[in-house]
Amino acid sequence: MYSFRNDYSEGAHPKVLQALVDTNLVQTCGYGLDNYCEQARQVIRSLTQAPQADVHFLVGGTQTNYVVIQSLLQPYEAVIAAQSGHISVHETGAVEATGHKVCTVSSQDGKVTPQMVESVVKGHSSEHMVSPKLLYISDTTEVGTIYTKAELEALRRCCDEHGLYLFLDGARLGSALTAPGNDLTLPDLARLTHAFSIGGTKNGALFGEAVVMTVPNEHFRWHMKQRGAMLAKGRLLGVQFLALFQNDLYFDMARHANEMALRLRDGMAALGLSFSVPSPSNQQFVIMPNQVSQRLIAKGYPLEPDPLDASCGIVRFVTSWATPPEAVEEFLRDLKDCL
Amino acid sequence: MYSFRNDYSEGAHPKVLQALVDTNLVQTCGYGLDNYCEQARQVIRSLTQAPQADVHFLVGGTQTNYVVIQSLLQPYEAVIAAQSGHISVHETGAVEATGHKVCTVSSQDGKVTPQMVESVVKGHSSEHMVSPKLLYISDTTEVGTIYTKAELEALRRCCDEHGLYLFLDGARLGSALTAPGNDLTLPDLARLTHAFSIGGTKNGALFGEAVVMTVPNEHFRWHMKQRGAMLAKGRLLGVQFLALFQNDLYFDMARHANEMALRLRDGMAALGLSFSVPSPSNQQFVIMPNQVSQRLIAKGYPLEPDPLDASCGIVRFVTSWATPPEAVEEFLRDLKDCL
Amino acid sequence: MYSFRNDYSEGAHPKVLQALVDTNLVQTCGYGLDNYCEQARQVIRSLTQAPQADVHFLVGGTQTNYVVIQSLLQPYEAVIAAQSGHISVHETGAVEATGHKVCTVSSQDGKVTPQMVESVVKGHSSEHMVSPKLLYISDTTEVGTIYTKAELEALRRCCDEHGLYLFLDGARLGSALTAPGNDLTLPDLARLTHAFSIGGTKNGALFGEAVVMTVPNEHFRWHMKQRGAMLAKGRLLGVQFLALFQNDLYFDMARHANEMALRLRDGMAALGLSFSVPSPSNQQFVIMPNQVSQRLIAKGYPLEPDPLDASCGIVRFVTSWATPPEAVEEFLRDLKDCL
Amino acid sequence: MYSFRNDYSEGAHPKVLQALVDTNLVQTCGYGLDNYCEQARQVIRSLTQAPQADVHFLVGGTQTNYVVIQSLLQPYEAVIAAQSGHISVHETGAVEATGHKVCTVSSQDGKVTPQMVESVVKGHSSEHMVSPKLLYISDTTEVGTIYTKAELEALRRCCDEHGLYLFLDGARLGSALTAPGNDLTLPDLARLTHAFSIGGTKNGALFGEAVVMTVPNEHFRWHMKQRGAMLAKGRLLGVQFLALFQNDLYFDMARHANEMALRLRDGMAALGLSFSVPSPSNQQFVIMPNQVSQRLIAKGYPLEPDPLDASCGIVRFVTSWATPPEAVEEFLRDLKDCL
Repeated sequence: MYSFRNDYSEGAHPKVLQALVDTNLVQTCGYGLDNYCEQARQVIRSLTQAPQADVHFLVGGTQTNYVVIQSLLQPYEAVIAAQSGHISVHETGAVEATGHKVCTVSSQDGKVTPQMVESVVKGHSSEHMVSPKLLYISDTTEVGTIYTKAELEALRRCCDEHGLYLFLDGARLGSALTAPGNDLTLPDLARLTHAFSIGGTKNGALFGEAVVMTVPNEHFRWHMKQRGAMLAKGRLLGVQFLALFQNDLYFDMARHANEMALRLRDGMAALGLSFSVPSPSNQQFVIMPNQVSQRLIAKGYPLEPDPLDASCGIVRFVTSWATPPEAVEEFLRDLKDCL
Repeated sequence: MYSFRNDYSEGAHPKVLQALVDTNLVQTCGYGLDNYCEQARQVIRSLTQAPQADVHFLVGGTQTNYVVIQSLLQPYEAVIAAQSGHISVHETGAVEATGHKVCTVSSQDGKVTPQMVESVVKGHSSEHMVSPKLLYISDTTEVGTIYTKAELEALRRCCDEHGLYLFLDGARLGSALTAPGNDLTLPDLARLTHAFSIGGTKNGALFGEAVVMTVPNEHFRWHMKQRGAMLAKGRLLGVQFLALFQNDLYFDMARHANEMALRLRDGMAALGLSFSVPSPSNQQFVIMPNQVSQRLIAKGYPLEPDPLDASCGIVRFVTSWATPPEAVEEFLRDLKDCL
Repeated sequence: MYSFRNDYSEGAHPKVLQALVDTNLVQTCGYGLDNYCEQARQVIRSLTQAPQADVHFLVGGTQTNYVVIQSLLQPYEAVIAAQSGHISVHETGAVEATGHKVCTVSSQDGKVTPQMVESVVKGHSSEHMVSPKLLYISDTTEVGTIYTKAELEALRRCCDEHGLYLFLDGARLGSALTAPGNDLTLPDLARLTHAFSIGGTKNGALFGEAVVMTVPNEHFRWHMKQRGAMLAKGRLLGVQFLALFQNDLYFDMARHANEMALRLRDGMAALGLSFSVPSPSNQQFVIMPNQVSQRLIAKGYPLEPDPLDASCGIVRFVTSWATPPEAVEEFLRDLKDCL
Repeated sequence: MYSFRNDYSEGAHPKVLQALVDTNLVQTCGYGLDNYCEQARQVIRSLTQAPQADVHFLVGGTQTNYVVIQSLLQPYEAVIAAQSGHISVHETGAVEATGHKVCTVSSQDGKVTPQMVESVVKGHSSEHMVSPKLLYISDTTEVGTIYTKAELEALRRCCDEHGLYLFLDGARLGSALTAPGNDLTLPDLARLTHAFSIGGTKNGALFGEAVVMTVPNEHFRWHMKQRGAMLAKGRLLGVQFLALFQNDLYFDMARHANEMALRLRDGMAALGLSFSVPSPSNQQFVIMPNQVSQRLIAKGYPLEPDPLDASCGIVRFVTSWATPPEAVEEFLRDLKDCL
């Protein structure tokens, strides 16, 4: 049975892997100072229309989030994030482990609004409290929703007004930028955030996140090294990102993932199921009667329902560049049998 | 005008200060290993009926809270606290600065219930999340409320069930234990918590918090020293706590503070004001029309209203061992004039 | 010109890379809980004759060192290491960044002796000092030397006597275990250390370090996740270590690296050069007149001499599984021309 | 028997204590924002001829050292200090606990020279190493020696050249500034350091260290609060420092302490004993045959010899404002009897 549990269930897109094979025996210097990384940096600066941006390559998402965040904060400064934000719940307190509080706000759809930001800023007014300094958002969010350009512009204005950095976690940025309804572009992100990441792990790379930093952060590589986030064979990241951005592969893969997700969504909706939050991207959160999910599990689907009430749970479905259309069709047939 | 802004607006109770004067030229060894500290430890072990307890003396409240908490936690472990808890908002992220997340729960009256604890425990089930390990509560709470013995017993059962430490911040413990409705005693606290503090700063000492620790914590003095929380002339803490616990001075002072607070409360209620939360202790949170508080400020009272809506604010009144009954009467007269 | 600058100048051994290609489209769960990792753990438990050991896979060396170290220490505990130890100088203070002091000892050959350990232990006797708790050593050391079984046994006895953990950094363990004069085996390491690492990055993997932990450390995966050291596609580590330990590939590659290094060493010695410390392994530190190194650099060799005096520098030569014998011969010819 | 073990064996100078008694019932606001602190700040700005300096009051020495240091450093930055420096050995790793490495240099007399600083700076040249950013020195040093103006000027030039902050720990600054041979003044210290402390604990206060900061450090109070270093009744520090600097009391006390120390030194030298390092200040390190120290201990002197060889140890003698001349005479007589 095909697993929809995640978008990192397979290795890399064959073209990415082939690029690693092709360059395998070339000697380079280490730690991301090689020519592949340098070329990949140039490609990203060009795609984001941010010729002055610093571009760094890290291995994973948690690593990227906390190293970027702690590199921008003083010890008494704090982060603002949605309660559902990845750094709030799913990173084992990585940000706090660097000494910084994460001030959370409640959000129905996983998105943060200027009002939420302001409620935190207003509540932290003296030296007896932490000083909020960075807004963390993710696109797509942890529940699959996406930001519009107007929303991001409003957040940046709010951040500017309160002296906050705006950091966008793009672990699933490919899916966001190719989702129906999206009107953001890479240049928009470079213009509207102080730093954002472009996720490779969940969109066709073996691993790797690129960080685009438009705020000065001269010693970021010191931070990376200190936190074990500087890969010895840094070339592996450069080679992969070069492959990802060749001929739009990155966006083509994300578009495919979204298409598979929307087929799943529409198919499940047609079968009468509903969703906990409307998502246009590669994560779909469906409300499923327990007996249906149990039957699917019995068939071999590795579902992990999150209990909603006595009879129902929320099941996350994730698609990727590797999801075959046939697997979607087969699942929908199996689902129909289980209803 | 007498200031009701805080319970640390004066120095020490004259008997405490006299004890420092009387012992001033006696030579002792440093760092709390002197005889005064040792005697004070024995007195506290006796009063708490906890002959095996470790007793440590620290200088201030924030220091006490974070040193105790971090000494009991592993790096991936977290604290549970009320959103209004002192460590959540008013200690500039001191706990997070030691690397630990504070998981907060909403509470109307500043008190934590077993259900709140369980909601956090249930939400942190895997290695991708922090592992809640310590419940922080305060008595009195930050809004002046107190725990009953039944409530504390229920919390301890809940903590035992989930492998949590129970730490009670007693910065205002004197006020709690002498408040109308209180049925807890020092021995109850030693029996029902793993560690609790007995606040001196806010009840008649120049400074000082005693920590009673019934959970093994062999290297606590290493933690104290590392965090700058071991006073060179540690004797100052021993001498003060000996004076505080001689002839019930500690409880007499707290009882006086409560009495003054309740006179304020009853006087203000009689004048038609209401309170944001009912408090039997030395902190009273009164809802006051802005024009009233402005008039009182104009008279010289250093009030700091916390805006509630367009026309009203919440004003905290705090009394102490040093509050003269005449000051209460005078304030009530002045308030009447300002209504 | 072939670069002898490092043992991570190329990608992976073709067999390792092929294993990644072969398994690329298999779906697995994430975070190292997949079957490849589980098989690799079993292989390593078997090779080390440590059926109860915990085996974890991390991405890089700095990451491995600091996550292992901080997972074993309380906040007031410290590490003992040679001044030349990788964690002392070359990891941007990663251990200190987790709050722990590294107490260093001077060592001519990069190796630590029981006397050195005891000098640190004796100097740290009270709560005003850190408490040394873990001895960090590396094999091969940072200057290419190796430990004998007798030396490691003596260190373990010394550690046991003083309640210290013994952690061996095996970033270049392959080279150590296949060096002339080595009498240590993987089972010896599992028996004599509390934790040790088996380096993949510098011996034929794209990346990856395996940690063999014989001391209980139940929440190590929490530590990994918190520090961004848990790879989403953890399978990549399992697949690589399976390939490394199939048919002795790991040891064959290391043996080749050593052989190339010893040819370099003997060739340079025959040409009259001497070495700053005798090394039987894949790192050779040669004392080279500046004019010779300048001529070689002019020929295209990327040498980085470390100034010794006005006329000479120390140049590190490193070989790997990928070093062709022809490159060694060519270099020796070029060197002869430059003398 | 009078104890020469420390300069914090008694309480406070009677004038300091009287000032606390005199102001005890005055109401002030908390946290060092009161008028006493403000006046004390003005006095110190005036005495140091540094009208723009920030002046902060903290409780103890370890606290002061680590809060100042961490407030000035980025996570990847490190401290340079003598191996014998208080922060290196006697503060339980407080600086490392905030994440910063202390790079130590060997020094016979406890003093740091520009050459020592440069050796550390040169050895830390890349992003793989910490970046030294602050030089920590103490005056008097931990072995009783003092800096001259020329030495301090040379250190500041060296710091400027390498972009380092210069921080001087003045826990025993009174003794330094009144020692024979001293040519430094408070204005010199304000001019030549970026921050220095004026120790109260070891010179007549109950407790308290003043920090004079000439480098901008706008959020220092946030750092203080976060680390539990902001005293609720901050007035206690202001009142004490006002008393210390009234009519030269601070310097008179230190002069007395030095005089007593030099009498001890000269008396012991006359009896044939020698010293491990020549000291003009209130700490004297005498080389004493074990049988002599044992006889003195038997008489009741609380000596703590630090073993030097089989027959001798080094014994520290410390005097203070409270040391009576008669105690010195009595000790010298007793010593003579024990030789």
